[in-house]
Amino acid sequence: MRSFVLTIGSELTSGDKPNGNSVYLANRLTALGVPPLHIHSVPDDPLAIASVLKWALEECEIVVLTGGLGPTVDDVTREAVAASFGLPLIENEEIEAILADKIPHPTEGQFRQIRLPQGAHFYPPELGTAPGFKLEVDQKNIFVLPGVPEEMKKMFEDYIAPELKNFIGEPGLKYQTYKFCGIGEVVVEGKLKEIPEFAGLIVDYSILPHGMEVHLKISSDKESLAFLDEKVKEIFGDELFSIGDKTLAEVTGENLRNGRLTVSTVESCTGGLLAKMLTDAPGSSDYFTGSIVAYGNDVKGHLVNVSLEIIKEFGAVSSQCAEAMAGNGRQVLKTDLCLSITGIAGPSGGTEEKPVGLVWFGLADKDGVESDFVQFSGDRSGIRLRAAQTGLNILRLKAKT
Amino acid sequence: MRSFVLTIGSELTSGDKPNGNSVYLANRLTALGVPPLHIHSVPDDPLAIASVLKWALEECEIVVLTGGLGPTVDDVTREAVAASFGLPLIENEEIEAILADKIPHPTEGQFRQIRLPQGAHFYPPELGTAPGFKLEVDQKNIFVLPGVPEEMKKMFEDYIAPELKNFIGEPGLKYQTYKFCGIGEVVVEGKLKEIPEFAGLIVDYSILPHGMEVHLKISSDKESLAFLDEKVKEIFGDELFSIGDKTLAEVTGENLRNGRLTVSTVESCTGGLLAKMLTDAPGSSDYFTGSIVAYGNDVKGHLVNVSLEIIKEFGAVSSQCAEAMAGNGRQVLKTDLCLSITGIAGPSGGTEEKPVGLVWFGLADKDGVESDFVQFSGDRSGIRLRAAQTGLNILRLKAKT
Repeated sequence: MRSFVLTIGSELTSGDKPNGNSVYLANRLTALGVPPLHIHSVPDDPLAIASVLKWALEECEIVVLTGGLGPTVDDVTREAVAASFGLPLIENEEIEAILADKIPHPTEGQFRQIRLPQGAHFYPPELGTAPGFKLEVDQKNIFVLPGVPEEMKKMFEDYIAPELKNFIGEPGLKYQTYKFCGIGEVVVEGKLKEIPEFAGLIVDYSILPHGMEVHLKISSDKESLAFLDEKVKEIFGDELFSIGDKTLAEVTGENLRNGRLTVSTVESCTGGLLAKMLTDAPGSSDYFTGSIVAYGNDVKGHLVNVSLEIIKEFGAVSSQCAEAMAGNGRQVLKTDLCLSITGIAGPSGGTEEKPVGLVWFGLADKDGVESDFVQFSGDRSGIRLRAAQTGLNILRLKAKT
Repeated sequence: MRSFVLTIGSELTSGDKPNGNSVYLANRLTALGVPPLHIHSVPDDPLAIASVLKWALEECEIVVLTGGLGPTVDDVTREAVAASFGLPLIENEEIEAILADKIPHPTEGQFRQIRLPQGAHFYPPELGTAPGFKLEVDQKNIFVLPGVPEEMKKMFEDYIAPELKNFIGEPGLKYQTYKFCGIGEVVVEGKLKEIPEFAGLIVDYSILPHGMEVHLKISSDKESLAFLDEKVKEIFGDELFSIGDKTLAEVTGENLRNGRLTVSTVESCTGGLLAKMLTDAPGSSDYFTGSIVAYGNDVKGHLVNVSLEIIKEFGAVSSQCAEAMAGNGRQVLKTDLCLSITGIAGPSGGTEEKPVGLVWFGLADKDGVESDFVQFSGDRSGIRLRAAQTGLNILRLKAKT
């Protein structure tokens, strides 16, 4: 059984807003065992909504629709859904009672929200004021949810997901994500061939790069996935950083916390991005104390004590500078570990000897300082992202030992 | 005339990848005068592709399709498009010659890329190895492009956009984006009513929040937009930071560069995000020298000289601490301006007196230090984003004067 995701909103078809609701629903419906066959967006236009809705029912058993249930004039979904199937809209007393508590003096637009297509079953709004509803047409189910992401997610998890679970049962197909850092997608695919059982055990798999990370997603039954978990751990070792949802920053943070290590960074070309990533996780103050963004050479000099000689002789993008940044940074920031990043993010500033994308990393601990470089590809923001991910990965591996 | 955007890829319908190609094409097609009426995604599944393609031609004159043209087994778009219209695939000698230069020893999969549906016109690949093509069916145009974003964008801009311009002519309807910071969307909408000509001059408009920014997008003719530019400038003054595409960080950088001012930041709860944003723009070393991420109180003390008394008496989230961070930070980092941010990003750490979302900002210049606070809503990442945007906006306004 496959599902149809339909998101409604002129801001989606004009490209003014990325479609986070589609991504969320696609993920959840896949996990629940009704993966989308179609994902669709239309503007707040009753004719377009009617047109796609009829086609959707020809294609799929389950339609999940979001957006256009609000109180403003451009919210036309309720009326459009009813009109698509020739159903009258009927005022619902239960919804009226719920909304009366939330809005003592409703506007005409807010009052519209108490109406439902005839025969629909409603879902009460908890976070906003827009009720959702379910409509059964030709023995197929249309779930209609508000478009505000928090409201949509809450209503989906509170009502739709349990209903689907009940209806579909435990999905035979499970999905597991394996996350790697430090190897490319081609290497991941190649190494999977070292598991002779692989092809026979899986139903499907995909390998996608996310900057320096590679995510392998496998669909199979529960037992096969449990077997593969062990095999993947065995074959990939430290290149595997997570089975499941944890981010690279979260795993790095866990390793630091478990190792009772504190960390700081001294960043040039990443401009604070690595520090930002380390502090994305709540509770990061357990291991992260601070950073110096030494963007200009002056700051490298007077705050991190990188000598002018090093910068003159070897340049700011060099092993020597990276090691001085990490070593001195560790003293100045008073942490167990200090990671430094210095490179050329571009678009300009590259030379034949030191091209755009060349990034040096330094790592200092109580025993000394080491350094290494990577030549990244991509544009400025891609190089900065890959450099910060690489920095996280160096810290993850260091803290693990 | 409306267009249909169709993106193909199992990673899209499983929710494993946000659909950046759709957003890009929606924006560009809208600007070119053929706004999408439908945006659709299907997996790499020939039956699903055929089904949606036939329906798309019933709905729209122009279909722009991306993805599934690569050399691997799951790339089925070329074959699916040909099969949808009962067309044979024919090897194209011109493409063969182009690819022979790029791939001396093609694999079977790469060799498949030289085939085209009968009657199709091809677009040569410049960045990758997948040619695109155009197919005319029932006097409607289907443009088929590779799915790798860089390849797709280059081919769209080099070939499709000029063809559409030629075909459609100068679009009567133009789109202009006005970006604000420091006021909410309701205020923006309210203030527009101060332009009596507004309703009569526009064809359509939308107002969307992006964290602390509000983007107003107006569609109208060229002359009306020129008139509205002046009116919007007049009514909103400094709350308007850009007419067009420039980001808040870019405008802030321009103001700093024009004012010949250097800037640094001292960040606690944003953990380096403001520094990262300031350095997103190439050339930011003209005005940005560095930052201290003073996440732990120790670093606030020994690197930014915030006295223990301040933290004991008023706490790290206080006017006093924000002012000390900015004032001392300016000395330590040796810049004309220094902005500090200290607050409670959550999810824990809030109290009744200082709830999650409370953020203090300090700004130091040659004349002294001032501070102010904002109570933000949202989750941890939302609060951090809004705080960093607010910091940028403070710097933008300061550098403008």
